[in-house]
Amino acid sequence: MDPTTAKTEKLRVTFQPKEVTTRVPSGTTLFHAAAWIGQPVESTCGGRGTCGKCRVRILEGTSPVTPADISHLGAEELADGWRLSCQAEVRGDMTVHVPRLLSTPKTAMFGVGRQVLLDPNVHKIHLKLPEPDLHDQRSDFKRLRDALLEEGFAMSADLPALRALPKALRAADWDFTAVLCGEALLAVEPGDTTREAFGIAFDLGTTTVVGTLLDLNTGEARGVASTLNAQAVHGGDVLSRISHTMSRREGLEELQRMAGLSINSIIERLTGEAGVPLDRLYEITVAGNSTMLHLLMGIDPEPISVTPFTPAVDHGLSVPASDIGLAIHPRGRAYLFPDIGAYVGGDIVAGLLATALPRGDRMRLFVDVGTNGEIALGSEARTVCTAAPAGPAFEGAEISCGMRATTGAIEGVRIGEDGVTLQTIDDAPPVGLCGSGLIDAVAELYKRGLMDATGRMRGAEEMAGRLPASLASRLVTLGGVRAFVLATPEETGGKPVLFSQKDVRQLQFAKGSIAAGIRVLMNVMGVAPDDLQEVMLAGAFGSYIHPDSARIIGLVPAVPLGRIRAVGNAAGEGAKIALLSYREREAAEAMPSRVEYVELSGRPDFNDIFMGVLGFPPLASLP
Amino acid sequence: MDPTTAKTEKLRVTFQPKEVTTRVPSGTTLFHAAAWIGQPVESTCGGRGTCGKCRVRILEGTSPVTPADISHLGAEELADGWRLSCQAEVRGDMTVHVPRLLSTPKTAMFGVGRQVLLDPNVHKIHLKLPEPDLHDQRSDFKRLRDALLEEGFAMSADLPALRALPKALRAADWDFTAVLCGEALLAVEPGDTTREAFGIAFDLGTTTVVGTLLDLNTGEARGVASTLNAQAVHGGDVLSRISHTMSRREGLEELQRMAGLSINSIIERLTGEAGVPLDRLYEITVAGNSTMLHLLMGIDPEPISVTPFTPAVDHGLSVPASDIGLAIHPRGRAYLFPDIGAYVGGDIVAGLLATALPRGDRMRLFVDVGTNGEIALGSEARTVCTAAPAGPAFEGAEISCGMRATTGAIEGVRIGEDGVTLQTIDDAPPVGLCGSGLIDAVAELYKRGLMDATGRMRGAEEMAGRLPASLASRLVTLGGVRAFVLATPEETGGKPVLFSQKDVRQLQFAKGSIAAGIRVLMNVMGVAPDDLQEVMLAGAFGSYIHPDSARIIGLVPAVPLGRIRAVGNAAGEGAKIALLSYREREAAEAMPSRVEYVELSGRPDFNDIFMGVLGFPPLASLP
Repeated sequence: MDPTTAKTEKLRVTFQPKEVTTRVPSGTTLFHAAAWIGQPVESTCGGRGTCGKCRVRILEGTSPVTPADISHLGAEELADGWRLSCQAEVRGDMTVHVPRLLSTPKTAMFGVGRQVLLDPNVHKIHLKLPEPDLHDQRSDFKRLRDALLEEGFAMSADLPALRALPKALRAADWDFTAVLCGEALLAVEPGDTTREAFGIAFDLGTTTVVGTLLDLNTGEARGVASTLNAQAVHGGDVLSRISHTMSRREGLEELQRMAGLSINSIIERLTGEAGVPLDRLYEITVAGNSTMLHLLMGIDPEPISVTPFTPAVDHGLSVPASDIGLAIHPRGRAYLFPDIGAYVGGDIVAGLLATALPRGDRMRLFVDVGTNGEIALGSEARTVCTAAPAGPAFEGAEISCGMRATTGAIEGVRIGEDGVTLQTIDDAPPVGLCGSGLIDAVAELYKRGLMDATGRMRGAEEMAGRLPASLASRLVTLGGVRAFVLATPEETGGKPVLFSQKDVRQLQFAKGSIAAGIRVLMNVMGVAPDDLQEVMLAGAFGSYIHPDSARIIGLVPAVPLGRIRAVGNAAGEGAKIALLSYREREAAEAMPSRVEYVELSGRPDFNDIFMGVLGFPPLASLP
Repeated sequence: MDPTTAKTEKLRVTFQPKEVTTRVPSGTTLFHAAAWIGQPVESTCGGRGTCGKCRVRILEGTSPVTPADISHLGAEELADGWRLSCQAEVRGDMTVHVPRLLSTPKTAMFGVGRQVLLDPNVHKIHLKLPEPDLHDQRSDFKRLRDALLEEGFAMSADLPALRALPKALRAADWDFTAVLCGEALLAVEPGDTTREAFGIAFDLGTTTVVGTLLDLNTGEARGVASTLNAQAVHGGDVLSRISHTMSRREGLEELQRMAGLSINSIIERLTGEAGVPLDRLYEITVAGNSTMLHLLMGIDPEPISVTPFTPAVDHGLSVPASDIGLAIHPRGRAYLFPDIGAYVGGDIVAGLLATALPRGDRMRLFVDVGTNGEIALGSEARTVCTAAPAGPAFEGAEISCGMRATTGAIEGVRIGEDGVTLQTIDDAPPVGLCGSGLIDAVAELYKRGLMDATGRMRGAEEMAGRLPASLASRLVTLGGVRAFVLATPEETGGKPVLFSQKDVRQLQFAKGSIAAGIRVLMNVMGVAPDDLQEVMLAGAFGSYIHPDSARIIGLVPAVPLGRIRAVGNAAGEGAKIALLSYREREAAEAMPSRVEYVELSGRPDFNDIFMGVLGFPPLASLP
């Protein structure tokens, strides 16, 4: 597949009366086309063809009548062009009329300023059914299924659910609440328990696991907790995790268990603190990179680590939570995000859900900086993405004075006329540099002329007379290698923090890789920095980077400062959105087919581009 | 629901060029309408819309274009009325043209003279795929799914299948056989193993479990084995089994385990003797009454035993065999037949599949005689069914000289001028009467005038001078109760076998219940004995009943002898058919909606009818 051409031809759909237009791949349903661009359409079943509420009228174009249409619409309505939008597939350009919503839907703010419709995949339906008698001998299953269908919900039940059914219905005296996760029957609870419905949205990071407990009725967050990924003892990045599964027979199971332990510890803490019983916790969503998701599922990730980097699975999966060792409702389910590519994983899909980048009309750039830089660029018309291997420099590794972002890490650096100002985590005496400090340090050295555009540090003799004494004394040479004293022994109360020429080179390689990835995508899209209406820095790290420094070192394109925005833990936000809105989850499911993946290893022009962005942009060129 | 009216309005479908017509409920697909009456239609995917081979041309009536049509048919074909018959639903009267089959399909003889198309639910597809490269980074799942779709098969994979996938594909060097059960991926086997595909069809009886090992490629039976149902220690009939689950906390699990043990012992024996490895045994089918199927699934059957007799489940189920404790391929599946009612279970659905009673054009009666008599009456135009509680008399219980059909049981009785001729099992000295002997004994006593039409036995004094001495001496009175000496102490070598007036009454109640059930169905259908073109006696017991005796005692209607036929183990035959043909399995799935269930307990006229058939028909009235 040639990544420079659009993936599929797209068809135009215009929604009246708002006159909003989108272009979708052939075969997309009108319901999903509307959801993609945020056009609200009535629905309770989430587009499964059972509630009959998502009717629209086709004004231009045609769509054949489906069985679900016949069940829910009259002959006259069908003749007038009315169809269920969840059944009508776009096969040509279309214009459709969407009726006004019958009621104001409940929404909540999530992600990057997104108003998300509360439309969770978990439904609780309170029913009071007449007891069976000789004139109505339907099986328990059919009695329940028929009653739910009348409420607009399709139901299926696996063996465990069927085993529980006869006793549960009779113990409740046929007055009960059915719990559906999608169509799967999870439970029959006595009485009306519709108000008690919870889920947890997880960002399963390589380093950190974060969970947010959400009330599925209100969208309200009832608690947030995080923990280190217990797998971290087997290496800090995905490749060392994968190599652990290859070097030990039990390695895969071990890492799966550790992922489960981390998630379960958060579940326990959140439900304990909020007083939510485990059997009212019906669903969790998990965003994570493809390796983390493979490990959580217990699927061998080895092929991800070697060319041509093929995952075993890259579609979204809803599985019984107990099948992956997670302790929620005994029949509760876990939804795992789809991946776009082996290195543009479910965390990035979640990030794109949170930012709605591929669904908006502005040209935006999304960068998640870590050991891999994941990059997406585009808008509703077209979006491309890639992953650029950045190495561990941004996490403090392979930097002489580098460290993780913990107490004493320098996260901000300012070099003024009168000396150096450091911002450290917990305001502790400085110990070393973490990622954002590293970027700051390089940007400040460059800005103050202590380093040239190729990254060469200037020596004390070269700068003689052009620097105040407070700075000049910080230029040193150790073993023939230039360095800058970020913090003196007096300031640290121990060893000095030295930033060396070698460290600069490491940083240049890391940022060069990401910058080259961005450049490739911009070339593919034919976009110049001026065209970028927003540059979003995602991930925990993205929140700490100073936008100006990122721009000065050329990590991000030279756009006006106001267009660079830290969007925080976008993956976690996406996981919340997918938990609260099935429609949004379906949009996540559509991402891999709507967002084009550009493989950098396959590109002959990558090395030239990489060499071209290793240096720093001329300071005067920054808008 | 009024059982005297047809369940749903039916629509006419005529298939050209054979000009065969059927009537089907609205919403039936053309593919299933054709399969129902045995009109062959090309297909490899079994009607899932993926192979595109089942195309027909609609000559009269309309059917909207579906997405699957668009994938498989050209615009011109669509305009000419061509549709995939598995997608086209009947919504009005229709005439369609069916193209001639491209090749002669493989068939095998099963059931009651049925030519069954070999079209198993298990498919093995040999594939050689190119290795992934940087230009084709599809996940393992998608690579396999796409290749199968090209062969016409849809695929889904659960977590265990996904976990096995990466290693299996690479170990096989991308030259492998994919095993599908329905759409579920069971395995990826290295090389071409398409010739090795087996299944076992089970009749899970309350008393006996029978299994037949079948080669799914050829339909050839590779072995038959039977065993007593291990549950039998907890009672001989379904009610005692259910009461065991109610009286003991672990009762349900115990009975489930016992059903599994019985089935597993047969699996072990059959595969051992035929040299078939367990991992080439992919699917089993199980026909059984609803209680047996509930117990096998581990679902509480208690509500089946009390009014209004509602099962928990009555739809057909395909479940992982391991979930119900059965040891076949680790991811192999078990198909359990649907029930029509709590007492017209999956064994009867299988029997109706084997006889094709509701799909043929002749008016036929099907009777399975046991502790319950299950009865079906009708043809393709309409079929009704019911269950009549017969009690244990036919199994030898509550009969003074009754016994099970084991060594020494009298299974045949002839009373001639010169005495009594007995046929015993294993030709052993007579010990007691089993069911078929019981019916014979009563019929012979009646035929010889030793009993009147009300069932009253005549005494020795009443018959004085009208009997040869050899018979007269057999009329005795013991404790004021008349009896007939079936076997003298000299003949038994021990105690005599005495058949008493009380025994006659027990038989009358048992046969009266079944005869009344038949009469009710005949009334519902407006059918007289003359209209019955065939009376089929099913079940192991049905095979041993002498048709003439059954007619004489009025167990079956008074039809010419040649129209009464023993059809053997119809349930077991149905299980085989469902294993070998997915189309036929779908016909079984349609039975509950096509065959009307008549509940006898709800009928005010039942008692009168029952009283009316307690006696015996005038001998002269038999045609």
